[in-house]
Amino acid sequence: MNNQQPSTLNGLDTVAMGATVSAIGEQSIVAKFQFRAQNQWLGGGHNRTTISDFDGACQKHVHEQPHVVDSDEPEVLMSADRAANPAQHALHALAACLCSTLVIHATARGIRLRSVESTLEGDVDLRGVLGLDSAVRNGYEGIRVSLKVDADAPSEVIDELIQVAQERSPLVDIISNPTPLAVRRVQ
Amino acid sequence: MNNQQPSTLNGLDTVAMGATVSAIGEQSIVAKFQFRAQNQWLGGGHNRTTISDFDGACQKHVHEQPHVVDSDEPEVLMSADRAANPAQHALHALAACLCSTLVIHATARGIRLRSVESTLEGDVDLRGVLGLDSAVRNGYEGIRVSLKVDADAPSEVIDELIQVAQERSPLVDIISNPTPLAVRRVQ
Repeated sequence: MNNQQPSTLNGLDTVAMGATVSAIGEQSIVAKFQFRAQNQWLGGGHNRTTISDFDGACQKHVHEQPHVVDSDEPEVLMSADRAANPAQHALHALAACLCSTLVIHATARGIRLRSVESTLEGDVDLRGVLGLDSAVRNGYEGIRVSLKVDADAPSEVIDELIQVAQERSPLVDIISNPTPLAVRRVQ
Repeated sequence: MNNQQPSTLNGLDTVAMGATVSAIGEQSIVAKFQFRAQNQWLGGGHNRTTISDFDGACQKHVHEQPHVVDSDEPEVLMSADRAANPAQHALHALAACLCSTLVIHATARGIRLRSVESTLEGDVDLRGVLGLDSAVRNGYEGIRVSLKVDADAPSEVIDELIQVAQERSPLVDIISNPTPLAVRRVQ
């Protein structure tokens, strides 16, 4: 690495990033992560997820403070609107993932970002979740994302970055493609 | 409705719930919802989603307080662990949705719940998001949910409830099946 390069770009440590990519390149086991969450019903539409730890880079990582995220439904969906609902949280996860993936790949290419903003819309027909029409799907019928990126780069490079963010984002994959899911009852 | 029935079960207003289901049964347009979110990059792996309003039941609903949810990456993923990361938020959305869907259907069947808890695990290989191996998918290779339900009901009825929650949950659908997604750049 050129010592005259700054070691931070877009708020990310480029030296650490290079080391991580090298370590994964040498040993693919380093890339294996397992994320975990625990959820508890609090009454009505209100429930709470606690995220305490995860495995990655061949070790267990405990969050210094567990991450706690609530979910609730708005009044029109018969609860008290104490937090975003699950469908809104899904949009958040997607938006956050597109943003992070774009920032990582811009940084890897040495592109300084000024801003990344997105707005998302998702259409859902509640006849699905309520079981009123089996022809209606339960999830989003479609999701649209408008992404606004300002960077020290030509417009066509920003277009490429937006393309790479879509191609590499874990949440874009989860939303666009089937993921194996197993639900089991425990006593 | 029998006037001697309590009007609240599991923290949900059963009269309002019946009215909602009837309204949707009469006019399917009432079931059409659009959820929205806005996300802004704050530097490094940190970004913030603001959820201000949504459309549903033929009107626009403005949250009294916007719901604000942050995302960040942990230190091992080169950021400051200020919040859960996008993959962890995806587990939260799924857990919250399974819980809410189960509570709604238990309530519709007149079953009093005592507790609903879940633990989730998701495996992901970071060679996907980093673009190091095109044969590795970006999203979760698999997600496992353990669901613990205590209710005033026989064990086989709880099994049925868990089955219905999976069959009707919007997030189970989004994770298990492809959802049309369009990302466009705006200036």
